[in-house]
Amino acid sequence: MMADTDNKVVKVAIDAMGGDYAPREIVKGTIEAVKEGGVEVILVGRGDAIQKEMARYDVSGLPIHIMSASEVILDGEPPIMALRQKPDASVLVATQLVKKGEADAVISMGPTGTVMVSAMVTLGTLEGIKRPTVGGDVLGFVPETVVFDLGANVDCNPRELLSFAVMGCVVARRMLHITNPTVALLSNGAEEGKGNHLVKGAYQLFKNSDLNFIGSVEGNDITVGKANVIICDGFTGNVLIKFCEGLSKSIIERLRVTLDKRLSKTDIDAVCEDLFSLTNVVDVRGGGLVYGINGLVWTGHGRSKAPQVAKSIHQVKLAVEANLVESLKLELTKIQELEGGD
Amino acid sequence: MMADTDNKVVKVAIDAMGGDYAPREIVKGTIEAVKEGGVEVILVGRGDAIQKEMARYDVSGLPIHIMSASEVILDGEPPIMALRQKPDASVLVATQLVKKGEADAVISMGPTGTVMVSAMVTLGTLEGIKRPTVGGDVLGFVPETVVFDLGANVDCNPRELLSFAVMGCVVARRMLHITNPTVALLSNGAEEGKGNHLVKGAYQLFKNSDLNFIGSVEGNDITVGKANVIICDGFTGNVLIKFCEGLSKSIIERLRVTLDKRLSKTDIDAVCEDLFSLTNVVDVRGGGLVYGINGLVWTGHGRSKAPQVAKSIHQVKLAVEANLVESLKLELTKIQELEGGD
Repeated sequence: MMADTDNKVVKVAIDAMGGDYAPREIVKGTIEAVKEGGVEVILVGRGDAIQKEMARYDVSGLPIHIMSASEVILDGEPPIMALRQKPDASVLVATQLVKKGEADAVISMGPTGTVMVSAMVTLGTLEGIKRPTVGGDVLGFVPETVVFDLGANVDCNPRELLSFAVMGCVVARRMLHITNPTVALLSNGAEEGKGNHLVKGAYQLFKNSDLNFIGSVEGNDITVGKANVIICDGFTGNVLIKFCEGLSKSIIERLRVTLDKRLSKTDIDAVCEDLFSLTNVVDVRGGGLVYGINGLVWTGHGRSKAPQVAKSIHQVKLAVEANLVESLKLELTKIQELEGGD
Repeated sequence: MMADTDNKVVKVAIDAMGGDYAPREIVKGTIEAVKEGGVEVILVGRGDAIQKEMARYDVSGLPIHIMSASEVILDGEPPIMALRQKPDASVLVATQLVKKGEADAVISMGPTGTVMVSAMVTLGTLEGIKRPTVGGDVLGFVPETVVFDLGANVDCNPRELLSFAVMGCVVARRMLHITNPTVALLSNGAEEGKGNHLVKGAYQLFKNSDLNFIGSVEGNDITVGKANVIICDGFTGNVLIKFCEGLSKSIIERLRVTLDKRLSKTDIDAVCEDLFSLTNVVDVRGGGLVYGINGLVWTGHGRSKAPQVAKSIHQVKLAVEANLVESLKLELTKIQELEGGD
């Protein structure tokens, strides 16, 4: 951790108008998080609406500021056009605060596509990155395993998979404190010759990199955490994470039937909630960081309520303190140098 | 069902030497299945080894024949080379019985790659099919949903996905008795514009076909059976099915911990076995049919024991009685005609 971020209050800009329960739950979650200390928040959006929610609590002395933004981008609006037509959109104004150095990070529970485009347009991507990536730990059974990409990049080339791996390693080191994370490609077999065209192409690139590459792993290897950083294209990652949610839901529903009359309602709830939280890590976390942007950006679920908002602020605080963006920049520059540029 | 297959004894050629427990468990499973009636089996392999196993049971009067084949292909041998070097391999001799019309179907628990190459070389593929596909129902929660391809074709084009869909529909109609099966593409979003290049290309093809195409579905839609036939490339399918096995295993392990002391060992076993069988359909079934071959071929798991062997024989019997290969031929010819050939 670099000295200049230690014990410093982290400034977070929050799109107060983004999400299904905005601004009410955004304001509530912000107050919860700020009370824990170490964070200063700028709520961006319609001043009157935010004020009205703030008035419901005793916020005297809390480091919460309001910055006015008159427009809101709604779910379903095409991101690029919406951002062009609404220059005073809350997500855009909030992101600009990071650009201007007035905030260390931005959080929005608005539509993911809009958050990402707003981030790319306002902050730009890091060197060598065309599109940002999303990912992280996906199963509570294996908290030391992160998977990238989880849906931001559906069509990838080997070079992009390599950049996901580099970013995944930074996340594993800085956020999960794993010194020398192992890296694997997700494939349909562990042998080097296995894989689709993409994986076969990436295999050589990974092998020749200075990553701690252990080869390919299969779907069942994710659930036992065979590698710390598991890389796939965003199509596969998205299908996988949603299948995981679906399967977990079906299993829990089934358990409620098979455990009925064998256990008390309270015990059944406890068993099911335990499984839910272990298999719905992304959902429980309420969103995730966008990696590859020249600034810290958190895209949260639209259905986030106050607890998720507070958790998001906490996660973003950790990422700022871990100097995540600077680490990503440094590591990405290294692979640029290794390859003699893009 | 066509008249000529009704009430007819189904003749199955079985590679008696394929699998981790061959020939012992193959012979044992065969005897079990044959005793149920309606099946005649030709066990192909080393006569002495098969005889020795047969001698352990009272097989008098059972319709089990032995056909000698002196060679065996082992796990790890490259299929094409092994089949060339061992013309008297049990899997090859057994498959040739189908070609000659001396058997209605062939079963092998030997290496899948070898079984498939042996089938392609000996029996050939159906018109318009370059490589066979594997698939079927994957979750006990949704027995009316089949997924294709589960790993036989890692790199696919839209036209291949369409042929999987056509074959999947035949399976849904003939084996699951669904009159007008709904078809969907597995994607990272339900909207038409979503998907990787492959899915986007296939979407138009599916839309213009006479399939009962309902659009794209997401990973979580599989677990609720949103369509009867769900189509993906074999890379995605393989990762998914293995992830399913792995996740189910982790969940069951966790349940054994959380249910401990809350339930009796017997009850915990019952709850866990229920979940296992619902989430490991492919595994419990012990293998699957290979679709797109001009003949009925079953590739079983190497670890199959007698119950899986008996189950495989039973499944193959149903497929013969459903006239599956003729139906596949007919449907594939239809799309050939529609497109004016390949």
